[in-house]
Amino acid sequence: MAIDLRSDTVTRPSAAMREAARDAPVGDDVYGDDPTVNELEAAAAERVGMEDALYVPTGTMGNQIAARVHADRGEEILLDEQAHIYKWEVGGLAQLSGLQVRTFDAGPSAVPTPEQVRERYVEEDLHRAGTGLLALENTHNARGGVAVPPEAIDAVAEAAHDLGVPVHLDGARLFNACVALDVDPTRMTRNADSVMFCLSKGLGAPVGSMLAGSEDYVERARRVRKLFGGGMRQAGIIAAPGLRALDNVERLAEDHENAARLAAGLDDIDGLSAPDPDTNIVQVFSEEAGLTAEEFESRCGDAGVLAGAHGEYLTRFCTHLDVSADDVEEAIDRIDAAMPA
Amino acid sequence: MAIDLRSDTVTRPSAAMREAARDAPVGDDVYGDDPTVNELEAAAAERVGMEDALYVPTGTMGNQIAARVHADRGEEILLDEQAHIYKWEVGGLAQLSGLQVRTFDAGPSAVPTPEQVRERYVEEDLHRAGTGLLALENTHNARGGVAVPPEAIDAVAEAAHDLGVPVHLDGARLFNACVALDVDPTRMTRNADSVMFCLSKGLGAPVGSMLAGSEDYVERARRVRKLFGGGMRQAGIIAAPGLRALDNVERLAEDHENAARLAAGLDDIDGLSAPDPDTNIVQVFSEEAGLTAEEFESRCGDAGVLAGAHGEYLTRFCTHLDVSADDVEEAIDRIDAAMPA
Amino acid sequence: MAIDLRSDTVTRPSAAMREAARDAPVGDDVYGDDPTVNELEAAAAERVGMEDALYVPTGTMGNQIAARVHADRGEEILLDEQAHIYKWEVGGLAQLSGLQVRTFDAGPSAVPTPEQVRERYVEEDLHRAGTGLLALENTHNARGGVAVPPEAIDAVAEAAHDLGVPVHLDGARLFNACVALDVDPTRMTRNADSVMFCLSKGLGAPVGSMLAGSEDYVERARRVRKLFGGGMRQAGIIAAPGLRALDNVERLAEDHENAARLAAGLDDIDGLSAPDPDTNIVQVFSEEAGLTAEEFESRCGDAGVLAGAHGEYLTRFCTHLDVSADDVEEAIDRIDAAMPA
Amino acid sequence: MAIDLRSDTVTRPSAAMREAARDAPVGDDVYGDDPTVNELEAAAAERVGMEDALYVPTGTMGNQIAARVHADRGEEILLDEQAHIYKWEVGGLAQLSGLQVRTFDAGPSAVPTPEQVRERYVEEDLHRAGTGLLALENTHNARGGVAVPPEAIDAVAEAAHDLGVPVHLDGARLFNACVALDVDPTRMTRNADSVMFCLSKGLGAPVGSMLAGSEDYVERARRVRKLFGGGMRQAGIIAAPGLRALDNVERLAEDHENAARLAAGLDDIDGLSAPDPDTNIVQVFSEEAGLTAEEFESRCGDAGVLAGAHGEYLTRFCTHLDVSADDVEEAIDRIDAAMPA
Repeated sequence: MAIDLRSDTVTRPSAAMREAARDAPVGDDVYGDDPTVNELEAAAAERVGMEDALYVPTGTMGNQIAARVHADRGEEILLDEQAHIYKWEVGGLAQLSGLQVRTFDAGPSAVPTPEQVRERYVEEDLHRAGTGLLALENTHNARGGVAVPPEAIDAVAEAAHDLGVPVHLDGARLFNACVALDVDPTRMTRNADSVMFCLSKGLGAPVGSMLAGSEDYVERARRVRKLFGGGMRQAGIIAAPGLRALDNVERLAEDHENAARLAAGLDDIDGLSAPDPDTNIVQVFSEEAGLTAEEFESRCGDAGVLAGAHGEYLTRFCTHLDVSADDVEEAIDRIDAAMPA
Repeated sequence: MAIDLRSDTVTRPSAAMREAARDAPVGDDVYGDDPTVNELEAAAAERVGMEDALYVPTGTMGNQIAARVHADRGEEILLDEQAHIYKWEVGGLAQLSGLQVRTFDAGPSAVPTPEQVRERYVEEDLHRAGTGLLALENTHNARGGVAVPPEAIDAVAEAAHDLGVPVHLDGARLFNACVALDVDPTRMTRNADSVMFCLSKGLGAPVGSMLAGSEDYVERARRVRKLFGGGMRQAGIIAAPGLRALDNVERLAEDHENAARLAAGLDDIDGLSAPDPDTNIVQVFSEEAGLTAEEFESRCGDAGVLAGAHGEYLTRFCTHLDVSADDVEEAIDRIDAAMPA
Repeated sequence: MAIDLRSDTVTRPSAAMREAARDAPVGDDVYGDDPTVNELEAAAAERVGMEDALYVPTGTMGNQIAARVHADRGEEILLDEQAHIYKWEVGGLAQLSGLQVRTFDAGPSAVPTPEQVRERYVEEDLHRAGTGLLALENTHNARGGVAVPPEAIDAVAEAAHDLGVPVHLDGARLFNACVALDVDPTRMTRNADSVMFCLSKGLGAPVGSMLAGSEDYVERARRVRKLFGGGMRQAGIIAAPGLRALDNVERLAEDHENAARLAAGLDDIDGLSAPDPDTNIVQVFSEEAGLTAEEFESRCGDAGVLAGAHGEYLTRFCTHLDVSADDVEEAIDRIDAAMPA
Repeated sequence: MAIDLRSDTVTRPSAAMREAARDAPVGDDVYGDDPTVNELEAAAAERVGMEDALYVPTGTMGNQIAARVHADRGEEILLDEQAHIYKWEVGGLAQLSGLQVRTFDAGPSAVPTPEQVRERYVEEDLHRAGTGLLALENTHNARGGVAVPPEAIDAVAEAAHDLGVPVHLDGARLFNACVALDVDPTRMTRNADSVMFCLSKGLGAPVGSMLAGSEDYVERARRVRKLFGGGMRQAGIIAAPGLRALDNVERLAEDHENAARLAAGLDDIDGLSAPDPDTNIVQVFSEEAGLTAEEFESRCGDAGVLAGAHGEYLTRFCTHLDVSADDVEEAIDRIDAAMPA
């Protein structure tokens, strides 16, 4: 059977989550009547130190709502050129909300410097779209699961706030960063005005993400959720496994260990190079082996290891709760055997 | 305990649905790997006689995707002035897709005449936004759960197609119409180019709706679903109860009987008037009682019957699978007792 | 030579206007440096009793800016189903500004009743796009150049204001209404929050319209004009004839007399019916003659009279400053001779 | 009197242009009846070797129409991070057309390499907005009036076309580039699918720009012009000076000589640095003088020389047809005298 390392989005709910889905008290969440959703929203807000939180069906919806509530049409959102919200969300910022992007190159640190923010800040005038939002990402997906330390976020958020610009944190894998750096989530989000984090991905919930912020912010986000078609009814059925997912935070450390082992093992293979990862995302470069990422992905797939080509010579592997230490060893062996002689 | 007749959206999943949620085989639906979602999409397409179908978190998202895939920005969508997609979906047609509405007054039949469509059809020119879509609704919510017969849909769809205009059917309560008129769903949608129907509402699923159409149409809809933030992961957990919900079609007849009984009972109360309903939605007028809808709703609520004010003197009651015939009798009694002397 | 009654937009600038164009002091209006534009904006504001005004290249741009500055995306604009801003502006409200329309049927009076506004007013909630603007039109083009009296505007504006809804007046032919009713423009616009009027059309300027409102409103409108691509440079060249156009207000009375004579003359022709016009727009119905509007338009064209088909049996004729009383007599004769035996 | 070097947009129409405005044959251009506009559109198309052209009130409108006609909402437009269309047009790409930008750093050459285009090209998939347009700029305003040679445009256009991506050329100052490089405009635009150039700016027309492309392209552009509110009526009054402006191409060489002299003169002043310009835009850096651009601009202004701060230490000066060689000498003297001791 294939070892699926394409993404931590492939994680399947545990038995406990499935039981929770079955047994969840529910109500109509559009009326605010779903006790499980309400419990999840309160728990999520507390976890990240915000006043309130909103349950949304996907991380993409969470990010898109976040941007729209912070920034008015015709404003600019400042973000990394590799940010998920810019690169992988179907151009939603422009299409759904009329927002223009202005990018910085965050580089290996995956977070801009205060100077980069100040340089790219635009003051609205007759000709120019002013800066309406700074969006950060932690861990940073496309940069290899980099865990950004809270001090770096503080510094850049301070620069943004000094300019009157709010800060959204795309924390699809926020808890991976917190565990890797041994930082409490409330510390990590201290200077963010909103944060989105996913219950699916490494935490293992089948569906759903949270968008947290101030009470007023979340109230406005709730209306945009309705607009985007995310106002579900007896959502307690999926919110219940989401609550259980919050128990899975500590065990992300295992995914990180597995990823470190995977990277080391693959880096030892001739022609492959795999830098030591911060968290659960391993980037493997296959140029020296004379394989494009698509060729390498295909070769891995044939050998029973699923991964994802993410660049010309870059393939991404994700560890997650359905992948054991043994699976990792097996994956290394399969790939080793599958390389060209 | 209150008898909740606010909406059939308040229905809670049955034990069988809950078991189904617990036991569902799942996968990552963004990769097309969720067997339960795939099964549901195939079953839904077959039910309505379309090539393919897409699972979406809400009926609103289904309708908004439908409109966007049919019509280009700057086109007009022709619909009833009481249509849900126009009235209750936060202005999404304009906001999300740049579509202009042109309304007709469908009147008590809840469906336009071919003549109305022909009159309002606009041919695109230098100055005018051309007609890009005709949207129908069956049953028609705001007009009192009216069940539109298939012949009326055929006639108006033919008029639209003659003008090159596709037809979307908002069938949030499609099966209520089919049961009330004893018509097979494939007959009802025969001349529609796409149809959205809800698994929640009267069918009792906790979450989710289906958008069905041609293969090509659904493929394009899938990408818009991603854009709108509706691309969920292990959605099988909620798709499984959705599959069970398809077993609940026949029993909608009970809701209709209960609604008929409720209308008759309320109509007998002095000062109230409640026309005989087609399906599960009862419209009650309280003007003769000297009560605004808000006052009447409030009085009912105090008496333990939840309903919804929908107009100055119009209050809406919905029967559904969590409301028994006894509940209906009890509701009539409670309201009777609560009326001003 | 053909007598061109298609529209008063075909008017050609007078010798005085042409001289004014040649001699205008100019500067870069994007920097606020064009003295002629500045003079025109001040004169226009004074004429309609507003604090400030903005020169725009077309009435369409003026209306579209007006709506966008008043109403936020996702709000509703309440207007007549025959309003120019809705019917003839390429769906711009939705496409450019994400505004949803809600229509009333103004009927022959061309202005809604306060009751119609109150009935259609929508208070924003979780599901609904709230009313953000009431747009009126005076004279009302598609309803036959109807001149709406100021009292009717006052009444409906008061109803709107009581609901917190601002009022925009599409006065493309505002001065026609004022002259027809012998009302000062400042009286007509007294209760409007913004007004657009055209210098082209009956006033004869080659290019341009004015959008007037409060200082703050016009400042915001200036930025939207830039966004829409209307921030011209040495616009004094066309603003100068625009200033001269303001001298042409009184003579609109001639156009109205000519229109009355044209209507009477055409109404006398067998098979044609032409109600007595309020201003310079004559609506001619040709159904009794067994001619569709397109057939009638074509027949008139062949006979040397240009008009415009505006409905199945409705053809529109406009009098304007390039059409004399003699031209009108000649047009009647030509059309009379051109009718089927 | 101040010497105005803020921009070549401040140029005033010549006596010949003013005469042309006075004497222009005109008609209603919305009906296609303005002979002067028609003549200008034909002449402009021929000048740049395209099938057809459209007269628009501003360069901004021309660029925004161009992008919208080439690319569908939700596509990406690939452009330099310093492009006018991105930086100075109020975020119109996102606001008006739902287009997402992807930037490259064109560097001093002001044109990307084919490699940069290939690297940033995105193929549309479920998650990604695909590349819909490559936009170039020549001369490149924000990079200092750089004249990009046709071979560089050919190379990058070929790369784009190989990927199925059309190319728009923002040629607001196209003729400056052609004159500086002694290249025929048709050679410069040979591989572009559309080109916008301004009649105002250095050519001296008071108002207006041209958007040229294939017949089909311009037909679609005409409808978008109407949407954006650019469909003017007797536009011949301003098109006529625009026709005269085409006679001013050769004399742009004088502006370039004046700019070269200005740069040399300012570069000789202690504390100032001014690289030798390609065309009529001079960039002056005042950091060594201990002056921010705003301080330097202000000091120049007090001394009777108007310029524009364009960066922290960067001030822009433009030569144009209202500035003589003597004016340039005088400007150098005034600035020299105004520098801190």
